[in-house]
Amino acid sequence: MAKDFPTRAENYSQWYNDLVIKADLAETSAVRGCMVIKPSGYAIWEKMQSILDKMFKDTGHSNAYFPLFIPKSFFSKEASHVEGFAKECAVVTHYRLKNSSDGKGIIVDEDAKLEEELIVRPTSETIIWDTYRNWIKSYRDLPLLINQWANVVRWEMRTRLFLRTTEFLWQEGHTAHATREEAIAEAEQMLSVYADFAENYMAVPVIRGIKSPNERFAGAVETYCIEALMQDGKALQAGTSHFLGENFAKAFDVKFLSKENKLEYVWATSWGVSTRLMGALIMAHSDDNGLVLPPKLAPTQVVIIPIYKNSDQLAVISETAVKIKNNLQAKGISVKYDDRETQKPGWKFNEYEFKGVPVRIVIGPRDLENGTVEVARRDTLEKSVYQIIDIEKKIVNLLDSIQDNLYQKALAFRDENTRKADTWEEFNTLLDTKAGFVLAHWDGTPETEQKIKDETKATIRCIPLNNTPEEGKCIYSGKPSKQRVVFARAY
Amino acid sequence: MAKDFPTRAENYSQWYNDLVIKADLAETSAVRGCMVIKPSGYAIWEKMQSILDKMFKDTGHSNAYFPLFIPKSFFSKEASHVEGFAKECAVVTHYRLKNSSDGKGIIVDEDAKLEEELIVRPTSETIIWDTYRNWIKSYRDLPLLINQWANVVRWEMRTRLFLRTTEFLWQEGHTAHATREEAIAEAEQMLSVYADFAENYMAVPVIRGIKSPNERFAGAVETYCIEALMQDGKALQAGTSHFLGENFAKAFDVKFLSKENKLEYVWATSWGVSTRLMGALIMAHSDDNGLVLPPKLAPTQVVIIPIYKNSDQLAVISETAVKIKNNLQAKGISVKYDDRETQKPGWKFNEYEFKGVPVRIVIGPRDLENGTVEVARRDTLEKSVYQIIDIEKKIVNLLDSIQDNLYQKALAFRDENTRKADTWEEFNTLLDTKAGFVLAHWDGTPETEQKIKDETKATIRCIPLNNTPEEGKCIYSGKPSKQRVVFARAY
Repeated sequence: MAKDFPTRAENYSQWYNDLVIKADLAETSAVRGCMVIKPSGYAIWEKMQSILDKMFKDTGHSNAYFPLFIPKSFFSKEASHVEGFAKECAVVTHYRLKNSSDGKGIIVDEDAKLEEELIVRPTSETIIWDTYRNWIKSYRDLPLLINQWANVVRWEMRTRLFLRTTEFLWQEGHTAHATREEAIAEAEQMLSVYADFAENYMAVPVIRGIKSPNERFAGAVETYCIEALMQDGKALQAGTSHFLGENFAKAFDVKFLSKENKLEYVWATSWGVSTRLMGALIMAHSDDNGLVLPPKLAPTQVVIIPIYKNSDQLAVISETAVKIKNNLQAKGISVKYDDRETQKPGWKFNEYEFKGVPVRIVIGPRDLENGTVEVARRDTLEKSVYQIIDIEKKIVNLLDSIQDNLYQKALAFRDENTRKADTWEEFNTLLDTKAGFVLAHWDGTPETEQKIKDETKATIRCIPLNNTPEEGKCIYSGKPSKQRVVFARAY
Repeated sequence: MAKDFPTRAENYSQWYNDLVIKADLAETSAVRGCMVIKPSGYAIWEKMQSILDKMFKDTGHSNAYFPLFIPKSFFSKEASHVEGFAKECAVVTHYRLKNSSDGKGIIVDEDAKLEEELIVRPTSETIIWDTYRNWIKSYRDLPLLINQWANVVRWEMRTRLFLRTTEFLWQEGHTAHATREEAIAEAEQMLSVYADFAENYMAVPVIRGIKSPNERFAGAVETYCIEALMQDGKALQAGTSHFLGENFAKAFDVKFLSKENKLEYVWATSWGVSTRLMGALIMAHSDDNGLVLPPKLAPTQVVIIPIYKNSDQLAVISETAVKIKNNLQAKGISVKYDDRETQKPGWKFNEYEFKGVPVRIVIGPRDLENGTVEVARRDTLEKSVYQIIDIEKKIVNLLDSIQDNLYQKALAFRDENTRKADTWEEFNTLLDTKAGFVLAHWDGTPETEQKIKDETKATIRCIPLNNTPEEGKCIYSGKPSKQRVVFARAY
């Protein structure tokens, strides 16, 4: 299975693409830039969704659903938003097809041209704030805390499975508040939710920060983000949370009567994560043997494989295997017992290793005699012999330990690959030889940031929250700076 | 709240529209024919989704995700499918917008015209079978049992919230099988799943049947359906399951190597239910006082309302209320304790009655002295006094009893409104004076069915499964018939 599969060192980019396809997670489709998410990949996404959805509900949010289409004119209403989002997008111009006169197929019916074109949503601020105008009249209607799970479309020129696709799946939260302070608190709260999810479920350490103006969401006053580091030393933005100020309320005329009986504009946030997280998850932990999944997001956490010579042996082994399976399931662990006779044990070992099942339990006749099983963990590939008698408790502990190990390993990797640069030369050398996060001084101007990007392809990933003040000089302009910011080349 | 709200008898259609909007379930949007599903409505849809999703997984299906867009040419590949689906649909022709030269807004960039137009999926058979071609090589790859939760778009001219909207949410199952028999068994199994869901969760009795050729899904060999009766005597198709034969396998060249080493076409099914079920649910049970929800689908099953004169009283009542709430939640019941001081008890009574919360518990100072509470059930509006001491068990029983009562009431209504017609005159009189299901003989020809539809607006809802054979004469043509079929005017 893992043949024709380059190692990370040989070709990281190819390693990722091959892994996604060979592990049956996703594939390209007949539609340019759009992916098919296969059952194995979608099962991981469903786990992500259900955990995030609970986190959103626990913080007071409700789900709703808004239209796929947005009238073209809506995009012109928020000045900076139109620049960021209304350009590369799918445009619906007609609503009917008809048989072609030559009988060779179907063609667009020119009589069915829309008066105003519809844009397939690249993000939903405009249609949602157009709707909120009717929902919000008084301070009693606030805060309005809504999330939507949806598909969105951005016409990307270069696409990569999960990381950048024309259509992708995501959630977008859109909240409305009576005060600036409440809206900022909400944006910061949702950043914490995302960071919690990344670190405690995905086992991916992240830097929490704010974006520089150049990298800010189109229409936002402040964009908060979490930034992760991949194994090739490139950064990946894993989630963003925006404080939108009164921008969309003003663009869509959304006002409320305050407790003091004054008509005021509403304060807004929006925040989202997408199937891009799948790319981050795969890239962060997997190795040259295939996928590695943190137990909390693995659709199958434990696989049990029997080794036997005949059906009598299988029957005896199955009795124990099913008992272990049931006991593990009773503890909330998802277990697959693969007793298929159509595949050999060696094939099964490779298969589940490649697909990232965290724990493999192997039971053979000799094991049974000894009251033991062989347990292999996917993250380190280590094998141990476990007594059957208290196996459930040990497997629970092992899963916890794998989850923790993956996080610690990713954290150590990030720490090793976060370096300081104090000169332009150092900065360039680090980017070209070591990659990773580079902490450097910046003079705070968009012009300098743009020049650094043009010359090195590195961007400011974020200005970390609670950053340590430090006097220094901008690596590019030499002008004074009061803190280091995080630079990296990014996905 | 229920002011300006007609009764069902006054204007059933207006009653439904007003109910959907005033109960905050959904509303029309700025985009023609597309709805916004509001949090209260979406919460019901989420309950439906989670129950159905479990049913699909319990019957061996996995979820996946396929592209929103379908190349236009795909629709021409299955001859009858193109007639049914490739006409009234949203067509994407361009992928970029630009600033207009007059600076007044944004316009479509004519340089960014797609070589081949993309259709926003009205249903996904074509793109999915194009994908399955690469997934299915051998009998070992079968059966392939996949479901997708997605949004779809059909450019409807007349739309109604939930019942018929341009964009709607649904699930679509698409399965592939080695034999005709297996595919038919799958289509029938999924019809049973839908019927089980309609009857045991929605509390809506349904007739299981097959569609006449005129009403069959475009591309299907056989369409199975469940048909429900609404309170105005009109039928509503609540779900369909299609046996697609080898039609899509042939159109997209999907073959497999059989156990006998022969290359054969794959057999297919597809099946779906949509947010239309929300319309059925609302119409089936609600009354002139507002929404009525079966407990199994009610996002809030029990509301507790305190009655008090001062904050000391409230504190004492709250102690008991919270205890009851926690005990009910421990039994898996969703409970809201509404102790808001901003609204009066009477307002709260109306609110939760209108929004269909199945059970209301009211606690006042006198109740506490007696160790009792007042319990009102939404379905019959009856009130009872319950001892607090064993209230949890009684509430569980009450919810079961409401669920059962709603089903029995709907079943009795359907039975009362299912009548036989033996002549054309009888048939017309029944349709015009009583509505409901009319069981009548039909000669089995599409021509007669079409004429009956043209003259009466009634369609054959289905030919019931396990129908009783009965010799008779077609009500329209007088030709011989061997069974009665179900006619009705329908949504």
